[in-house]
Amino acid sequence: MSYKYMYFWSTKLVNQYYQIQMKNKFLFKAFLLIMFISTISWVNKDKNDVLVHNIAEFDEAVSSAEPGTVIVLANGIWNNVQFKFTGEGTKNAPITVKAETPGKVFIEGISNLEISGNYLIVDGLFFRNGHTPTENVIAFRTSEENVANYSRVTNCVILDYNQQQRDKDDLWVQFYGTHNTLDHCYIAGKTNGGPTVRVDLKGNQSIRNYHQIVDNHFGPRPRKGGARGETIQLGSSFTSMSPSNTTIANNLFEECNGEVEIISSKTNFNEIRNNVFYKSEGSVVTRHGNYAVIDGNYFIGDGENKNYGGIRLVNTGHWVINNYFYKIIGENFRSPLAVMNGIPKSPLNRYNQVTDVVVAYNTYVDCKSPWQFGVGTNIEQKDVLPESEIRSARALRTEVANNIIYNSIGDEHIIIEHDKADGVKFKSNIINNQEISFGDTTRIKASEFQLTKVGEYVYLPKLTSEFDIYQGFGFNTITKDLFGNSREDKNSIGAVVQGEFKDTDILNKAKYGASWYSNIVKNTSPNIIEVSKTKGELAAKIATAKAGDIISLKPGKYKVSKSILINKTITIQSKENEKAEIVFTGADNTPLFELNPYGILNLKNVSLTGNGKQKAFSNLKENMSNQYGLTVTGCDINNFDYVLKAYKQTFAQEITFKDTAIADCENGIELSEETNDKGDYNVEYLTIQNCTFTNVNQNVIDYYRGGYDESTIGGNLLVTNSSFSNCGSKEENGILLNTRGIVNVDISNNTFKNNNVKLVALLWGAKNNSHADNVITNSGQIKVEENLKMKLMY
Amino acid sequence: MSYKYMYFWSTKLVNQYYQIQMKNKFLFKAFLLIMFISTISWVNKDKNDVLVHNIAEFDEAVSSAEPGTVIVLANGIWNNVQFKFTGEGTKNAPITVKAETPGKVFIEGISNLEISGNYLIVDGLFFRNGHTPTENVIAFRTSEENVANYSRVTNCVILDYNQQQRDKDDLWVQFYGTHNTLDHCYIAGKTNGGPTVRVDLKGNQSIRNYHQIVDNHFGPRPRKGGARGETIQLGSSFTSMSPSNTTIANNLFEECNGEVEIISSKTNFNEIRNNVFYKSEGSVVTRHGNYAVIDGNYFIGDGENKNYGGIRLVNTGHWVINNYFYKIIGENFRSPLAVMNGIPKSPLNRYNQVTDVVVAYNTYVDCKSPWQFGVGTNIEQKDVLPESEIRSARALRTEVANNIIYNSIGDEHIIIEHDKADGVKFKSNIINNQEISFGDTTRIKASEFQLTKVGEYVYLPKLTSEFDIYQGFGFNTITKDLFGNSREDKNSIGAVVQGEFKDTDILNKAKYGASWYSNIVKNTSPNIIEVSKTKGELAAKIATAKAGDIISLKPGKYKVSKSILINKTITIQSKENEKAEIVFTGADNTPLFELNPYGILNLKNVSLTGNGKQKAFSNLKENMSNQYGLTVTGCDINNFDYVLKAYKQTFAQEITFKDTAIADCENGIELSEETNDKGDYNVEYLTIQNCTFTNVNQNVIDYYRGGYDESTIGGNLLVTNSSFSNCGSKEENGILLNTRGIVNVDISNNTFKNNNVKLVALLWGAKNNSHADNVITNSGQIKVEENLKMKLMY
Repeated sequence: MSYKYMYFWSTKLVNQYYQIQMKNKFLFKAFLLIMFISTISWVNKDKNDVLVHNIAEFDEAVSSAEPGTVIVLANGIWNNVQFKFTGEGTKNAPITVKAETPGKVFIEGISNLEISGNYLIVDGLFFRNGHTPTENVIAFRTSEENVANYSRVTNCVILDYNQQQRDKDDLWVQFYGTHNTLDHCYIAGKTNGGPTVRVDLKGNQSIRNYHQIVDNHFGPRPRKGGARGETIQLGSSFTSMSPSNTTIANNLFEECNGEVEIISSKTNFNEIRNNVFYKSEGSVVTRHGNYAVIDGNYFIGDGENKNYGGIRLVNTGHWVINNYFYKIIGENFRSPLAVMNGIPKSPLNRYNQVTDVVVAYNTYVDCKSPWQFGVGTNIEQKDVLPESEIRSARALRTEVANNIIYNSIGDEHIIIEHDKADGVKFKSNIINNQEISFGDTTRIKASEFQLTKVGEYVYLPKLTSEFDIYQGFGFNTITKDLFGNSREDKNSIGAVVQGEFKDTDILNKAKYGASWYSNIVKNTSPNIIEVSKTKGELAAKIATAKAGDIISLKPGKYKVSKSILINKTITIQSKENEKAEIVFTGADNTPLFELNPYGILNLKNVSLTGNGKQKAFSNLKENMSNQYGLTVTGCDINNFDYVLKAYKQTFAQEITFKDTAIADCENGIELSEETNDKGDYNVEYLTIQNCTFTNVNQNVIDYYRGGYDESTIGGNLLVTNSSFSNCGSKEENGILLNTRGIVNVDISNNTFKNNNVKLVALLWGAKNNSHADNVITNSGQIKVEENLKMKLMY
Repeated sequence: MSYKYMYFWSTKLVNQYYQIQMKNKFLFKAFLLIMFISTISWVNKDKNDVLVHNIAEFDEAVSSAEPGTVIVLANGIWNNVQFKFTGEGTKNAPITVKAETPGKVFIEGISNLEISGNYLIVDGLFFRNGHTPTENVIAFRTSEENVANYSRVTNCVILDYNQQQRDKDDLWVQFYGTHNTLDHCYIAGKTNGGPTVRVDLKGNQSIRNYHQIVDNHFGPRPRKGGARGETIQLGSSFTSMSPSNTTIANNLFEECNGEVEIISSKTNFNEIRNNVFYKSEGSVVTRHGNYAVIDGNYFIGDGENKNYGGIRLVNTGHWVINNYFYKIIGENFRSPLAVMNGIPKSPLNRYNQVTDVVVAYNTYVDCKSPWQFGVGTNIEQKDVLPESEIRSARALRTEVANNIIYNSIGDEHIIIEHDKADGVKFKSNIINNQEISFGDTTRIKASEFQLTKVGEYVYLPKLTSEFDIYQGFGFNTITKDLFGNSREDKNSIGAVVQGEFKDTDILNKAKYGASWYSNIVKNTSPNIIEVSKTKGELAAKIATAKAGDIISLKPGKYKVSKSILINKTITIQSKENEKAEIVFTGADNTPLFELNPYGILNLKNVSLTGNGKQKAFSNLKENMSNQYGLTVTGCDINNFDYVLKAYKQTFAQEITFKDTAIADCENGIELSEETNDKGDYNVEYLTIQNCTFTNVNQNVIDYYRGGYDESTIGGNLLVTNSSFSNCGSKEENGILLNTRGIVNVDISNNTFKNNNVKLVALLWGAKNNSHADNVITNSGQIKVEENLKMKLMY
């Protein structure tokens, strides 16, 4: 039935209605209403909705789409598809591509989505099990010239959609054009290089873009081990002069740990408002560009993890207002407020001086040394760095005013001046520091007030005594507080005006991301799977186990002739106190345990023996598309070529050897493949506790990070309560424990005896390298060099 | 009579009016009207106008001023006054400081004006005969914190208000705050360092300022001889990230020759609209900052002077539209359109790459090589310059579209690519090049069309054949043409839409500047004043002569025992063919002619003789508050210590020796005092034509400019048809003609004989240095060094 005929028919009915002269009025009215509704929905379906089942149908539908068209992707897996969605919708009649059922349309394999035109909407897709063939998973353009405007990606999920190699960079959402929106999406699990979301400003068609990144849930992004792991990047240094006007608002950032910058604002006039940064190991950084507004955000830490950061400032004219910081104890780059030193007349891609910044009406609860100035100063390194790398330009014309600090336990160092804050004006700031002295009282005034619990993690000061409010230039534009209350009538210092505080339920995940997806995982107890010595049983049982399960080895000797593949979290342990013994008879150069993407092996109380030419543990040389992990506790490891061999572009969050004896191996723990000198490294935390190393000839511990880079601040090496004897005799560089470039190193309470090396370790004094209480006999010494010469990355 | 009583009285009258019951209506009405008017004006005078006669009265008036108050400065000379004008006017009732009679209030001596507050107006003042004791003559602030907003300086003149030394920099108008206006002012004659007008953006109180610099007449600013001679500078590199939003519109720039930049835009979002650049030796330059709009300006040259420039672009996002260029033949930096190469990742104060620029709808009439790209490339100099000085980054994402070029005489090189323009898109440009081939016809299309004379210097193309209009991104925002006509209905390429062209009378000076001041000078014929040998008569007659007069020397020998002061334009010549002879018997080290500020001496056909220890010509060692000049024609100069000795911080536009014999002097022409190496030099044009130098021991010609600076492009030395013999024997550096650092040097058709030097000259190959047809005998040689090592200025 055509729409025309339908119209005719309903008109006819109306005529009839009048003809029967208002008889049985109610019934007829209801009939007409039903007719009308069904006509409308029928018309909609027929005229506007197009159900498509494959890419050819999709392309056809796109090419014939008109304003108002809805292209419906059939439920199921869409494998290896490259969507090009171009069209010209209108404000009132956009063109939409949506899932038949939101969350039931899976984009997998080598797939991507490109959008260009005006008023286009993408709704309800799930990207997983694959990666993009291009530089981005979702791009708001289809070619250099054809960008999207007034378009929207909503209610979608991108999960673990990683390239096969860590060094193959991509972006998951790349903005071009203007007035585009990414909203109500869940995006998590990026392990390869490249920001998760980037706004691109190259070309006049993408400036003053007013993009909106709102109401999303940015789920966990694991530590990447080096740079290029931002969750959102707004432009780049090359477009840092451009007005962007992008808004990032009302998002939840949960465990966004990719690198030191969660959001890297690199253009002008961006606004970062009302987001929640929850246990995210990084900061909001105004890396390039100027005049950002960072207003009304929550930074939630735990008082333990020093990697959770706050706001780090570079450049001019930013306004940091109405923010709430809870238990953020990050230091230096990661301090709650880190105001950096700039490089005088900085090159475009380095550090401009901080000027004309306002930090006002913020509240800090139980943070450590919340205000740090001169962050990044490296005047001492002027002998090892060129002049154009020396950050000596202190903040100018900056105001810190109307802020409140509360500490349950007094903090003696509220302000840390890595370099003098003499260009900063402090006005009307107060603190309750439990009467502990905290330095300069002209900058912050001690005051007595208590906190009120408003919600989970949210405690707000209830002021009782009088307080001054400083009125700086333009402060009259700060009209609202953290909760959106007006500051007009009953203003106060701190993030929230005094009065009734209401719980804003900031961690209610239902408020963020796709409506159909939750990342809340129910705890399930692991299965314990007993394994006997029967040939092949061990590998078979591991293969069929579920993630989290425990493989329990009955006592005895297990002969393994082929590498055992680990691609999930698995624990292998001896059932009895007596160690089960695994003897590896596999080929030379192969590993006993092959750690694959997602493979996290927890090995307890087991003895491993090789033939001297294999590896105990190794990961994949290629296609290591996700991370792995290894914890070895109470084990014996004998007679391997390598204890652990990690390949380039592989990364583990943690590698731990505890209570373990390693003997008669050619190489020890080898994590030194990232030789690009771009700041990358192979493991975030390497821990050696209470272990013995005997007769390990070279690379006893070899852990490397290369490149001068002030902003990658890992990895972490702890070597403690361990003993090393007769090791390192074949080590070419004459150093027993190689730690070059690693930022955090602690070597303490160890015994080094009869190791034929020049040095036990060469530590980097300017970084967080330390050693203590080691007993060194006939093994050279530990040397500390203040400023290691590193290759410049920029 | 109080206002109250007046009110009472007039009310009473009204009552009387009604009492006499409408009798003699007309007469009474007239009486009432007169009463009303006189009451109003009397009230105004009494309540709002305050006539002040000295600074104490002024201060008093300012301190008690209210919205609507008018402070009237009494006519006369206000000497050594520092006006601080602070107040809080309102939009409808500003506070005004005005001249009793515009132009009759002279601010002289060591005086200045500072303004702060809101809605303040300054009207009708004349700054002359003095200089400021501070860094600015008029400042829109009274202290670092107290700036002016919504305030205005109008109908004022600042003339020759120079510091005593050229190196003592100041500004004549310095903007702070926001929404201030400089309009209808005449400003001319600045010779000391520092831009005439500067907008300052340090501090949030001065960004997004929306200042207006409109309807002014910027009269002649002489060549300064080095940098820091801009007419208007908008911010500085240190605030180049800030939004300025300053408008410079409807001004006349006449002979603004201070340096290569007439307007130096160094911040963002500035607008330069509908100005006339008339015979001004410089360009409008987007030196720092981005997104400038240069719309609808006239650049008027003469086809002869290569120093008249157009628009030079650095940085991102500028729009150059609707501009008209007439007979601009400047080269390279001064070409009509000069698109510079940037330094990759440039330091803040150097050259950012050009990106995202639009050059559209402009018209070029009889310009030479109007489009030049890669301007400033210095890749060849990478051996003598650090990497951070190498301009190798070519323009990117730049569009040149919808432009029209007309040449009466065909030009073979319309586009000059100093470096490749491969990042530039050319669209819909046309040219009438008189059928002369001009290179790449894909970039510009040959077309036949003629010009129509619209007004003085304004000739516009009348298109007859079809033309395409390119629609680039955002081109729809170009809604008007040069004349303000709508582009909507009858659009065209070029600066003006096709149709009726009307004369906009761009050089009618009555349209610009102060209503009461004109810089048009009537030509008057000089007096010829005869002088005899009578002792003291020469000096006396010169002292009483008027500028421009001619002193005519009767034949004979004039004994002069004291320096003759020259402080105006004066010609001294022999009355008869026979040279009058001036014998100087003054003290050692004193000059025969002491050239003072404004002193321009034209000496013809006279013989000068000293005792070997004096100077023939010299200027002042101190307080050389304005420029001087010297032309010597057909003279003999013998037996001086110096022919010419120019001191530091002194400057002449031109120094010329013609047909003159110089003999037996210890030093020749010495112009080498500017040893700061900041780009300064002592004379713009030094010309030696048809002269003989005999027995001049050192500094025969010594002319120096120091400092690596790509943007000072003087001085100019011409040595031609002259002979040098037995000179330079005491010259320490062994070079006869010292030209180090001088950009334009031409040494040709000279004879060098028996000069005991190593080199006649050491020329700078990379710059415009040349030599030809010289005969060199027993005098060393002329050497050319391609890249001279110079001290870096930045």
